[in-house]
Amino acid sequence: MKVDGVWRRAIERAPDGDTVVVLDQTALPHRVRWLELRDLDGAARAIRDMIVRGAPLIGATAAWGVALALRAGVDLDHACRTLAATRPTAVNLRWALDAMRAALDVPRGDRADAAAALAARICDDEVARCEAIGRHGLGLLERIAARRDRPLRVLTHCNAGWLATVDWGTALAPIYRAHEAGVAIEVWVDETRPRNQGLLTAWELAQHGVPHTVIADNAGGHLMQRGEVDVCIVGTDRTTAAGDVCNKIGTYLKALAAHDCGVPFFVAAPSPSIDWTIARGSDIPIEERAAAEVRRVTGRATAARADDHRGDGEAAAPARDRGGVVEPGIVEIELVPAIHPVANPAFDVTPARLVTALITERGTCAASPAGLRALFPEQAPGGADRA
Amino acid sequence: MKVDGVWRRAIERAPDGDTVVVLDQTALPHRVRWLELRDLDGAARAIRDMIVRGAPLIGATAAWGVALALRAGVDLDHACRTLAATRPTAVNLRWALDAMRAALDVPRGDRADAAAALAARICDDEVARCEAIGRHGLGLLERIAARRDRPLRVLTHCNAGWLATVDWGTALAPIYRAHEAGVAIEVWVDETRPRNQGLLTAWELAQHGVPHTVIADNAGGHLMQRGEVDVCIVGTDRTTAAGDVCNKIGTYLKALAAHDCGVPFFVAAPSPSIDWTIARGSDIPIEERAAAEVRRVTGRATAARADDHRGDGEAAAPARDRGGVVEPGIVEIELVPAIHPVANPAFDVTPARLVTALITERGTCAASPAGLRALFPEQAPGGADRA
Repeated sequence: MKVDGVWRRAIERAPDGDTVVVLDQTALPHRVRWLELRDLDGAARAIRDMIVRGAPLIGATAAWGVALALRAGVDLDHACRTLAATRPTAVNLRWALDAMRAALDVPRGDRADAAAALAARICDDEVARCEAIGRHGLGLLERIAARRDRPLRVLTHCNAGWLATVDWGTALAPIYRAHEAGVAIEVWVDETRPRNQGLLTAWELAQHGVPHTVIADNAGGHLMQRGEVDVCIVGTDRTTAAGDVCNKIGTYLKALAAHDCGVPFFVAAPSPSIDWTIARGSDIPIEERAAAEVRRVTGRATAARADDHRGDGEAAAPARDRGGVVEPGIVEIELVPAIHPVANPAFDVTPARLVTALITERGTCAASPAGLRALFPEQAPGGADRA
Repeated sequence: MKVDGVWRRAIERAPDGDTVVVLDQTALPHRVRWLELRDLDGAARAIRDMIVRGAPLIGATAAWGVALALRAGVDLDHACRTLAATRPTAVNLRWALDAMRAALDVPRGDRADAAAALAARICDDEVARCEAIGRHGLGLLERIAARRDRPLRVLTHCNAGWLATVDWGTALAPIYRAHEAGVAIEVWVDETRPRNQGLLTAWELAQHGVPHTVIADNAGGHLMQRGEVDVCIVGTDRTTAAGDVCNKIGTYLKALAAHDCGVPFFVAAPSPSIDWTIARGSDIPIEERAAAEVRRVTGRATAARADDHRGDGEAAAPARDRGGVVEPGIVEIELVPAIHPVANPAFDVTPARLVTALITERGTCAASPAGLRALFPEQAPGGADRA
């Protein structure tokens, strides 16, 4: 989608063909910074330090990491091991590495070119999947918009946009499609504590010119009660064969409010997110992440502070981000003093009964075993293969 | 409740009898600072700058403001006008000022003593009401705890503790009572964005020795789904005659999750919070507060930062808080850049159907017209008087 008016992807091959560039997501929304990945270590660091994030984008970056490694003569096994170790629980990361390894059963001299071609195709496939979700979701949004005499108001949670994929995004794809199609649309953006990924969503939408409003995670229920939300769309990290949806913590609360208020609740679920081996969402283990994510928060030092001290519009002291990069003007503060214990579950499960429909790249379906099997008939009941 | 091991109130008459002291809530949870209020201006500033907050405590501070004014020979009307202008929408503020004015129909020479006596009584009445809520709520908690073979886990939202009242609090009173009675109890504390009043709750609980864990507002639903919450207790800013509850934004989402998960959801509702003139919560206008509350956040500069720069454990640049007070080590950052619009509704309405019971100073009752009228028979249907 657009950045400073130019259509970009979250990961791109550089014009020279030898390197790739990624948008540094640790600097957003406060600064736009493109980083060049030149080699295996650069790609591994980008994933590990969360310069790139979002399951599809992590997979795409890992695929490019393999290609960069092979171009430099690095051993394939070493490259895959290095990349696999960056984010131990990321499913797409391992999927992309397995795909690369399987496709590189070619003469050693052809491997580097084959790897680059496959990495590019993995990115293109991801974009095609998101485009298709956007197309199918657009139909849903247009039908709801047709019943309104004011802009369509959509609520989303976390960031399931192009920053998390390669382009278009999953939950945001229908929104971008609608905006491109001239449907008047406004987006309520949940802040999404503790990591505030809503600010990435707000940044994306602002760059592409989509009207939006940032709200605290607490506000969405009230807005639905008062008729200010016409539809919710969220992404999913893992969708069960029965249509239960494991997504960013807090999604369940919004689904409950949508159900209580009669607001449609859609989940954009690309097929790689569907885990055909699990039926009940309550069986999904939920990752408990570091307390520091709740305890501390990063932002731009306010002008008032800087004026007090220097008057140059920059903070007096730069903070180190998690990756050790010093970013002037961006500081970290402690919200929750160390004496207070903190818990930080990263995801929750929205039961299928609260999901109005799933939007996949093959079309929309009921969040149910029958609904999903109708779209993915090759997934025999009880089958263990991932789409 | 206890601060540094000593039982205190959020507002206290100083030993000399001529001044009152309040706990500066703008410095919490990072610093404990008691401020002396010596005169009308000091009391007005404490309310206006949110050094004191919470409806009952605002009323108590206003009452003491009148007493301090009269002791200094200030005109009663001027004192009441000055205090009434500090927080235009605070119901308890006006109630306290009306009560003071009505009671000061005594010879001018006796007014100062009468005002101090009445202010003290207003505080004592508030404490008695909270104590009674604690007593009634304790019975509910004990019955639930008796069915558990581990500590009772309670979730609360915002701060309805002694910091918001004078002592005990409303929602926290049953929790403190249970802790004092030896019931093993642990509290999930919602952060409560955007103003993070959950950190005041965490501070209160820590000072009094009650085990607790701070969570993002998004986490409560997941914890209820997984059986980690036995009961919810929240406060209320305004309770309708039908039992609908207007409380801090986000309360409705937790009530929905409690209902979905079969977790009892109690609301501590002192009678002054009951608005007998309104039946439907959807008729309550919801205050839209400043975007800056969402956009900016204040906390302690992290040690990492200070070490980078000075190594003295203090931030390089002090921030100004809303009241213009400079607090070393506490800094303000911008989370949401100015280009993004922000909405900030401050309250939401939890429908009576989601409330398991109301806990008032007269006992517990169903959140319904019949339930409330049974406890407050003097409130004839359609009556316009506030309890």
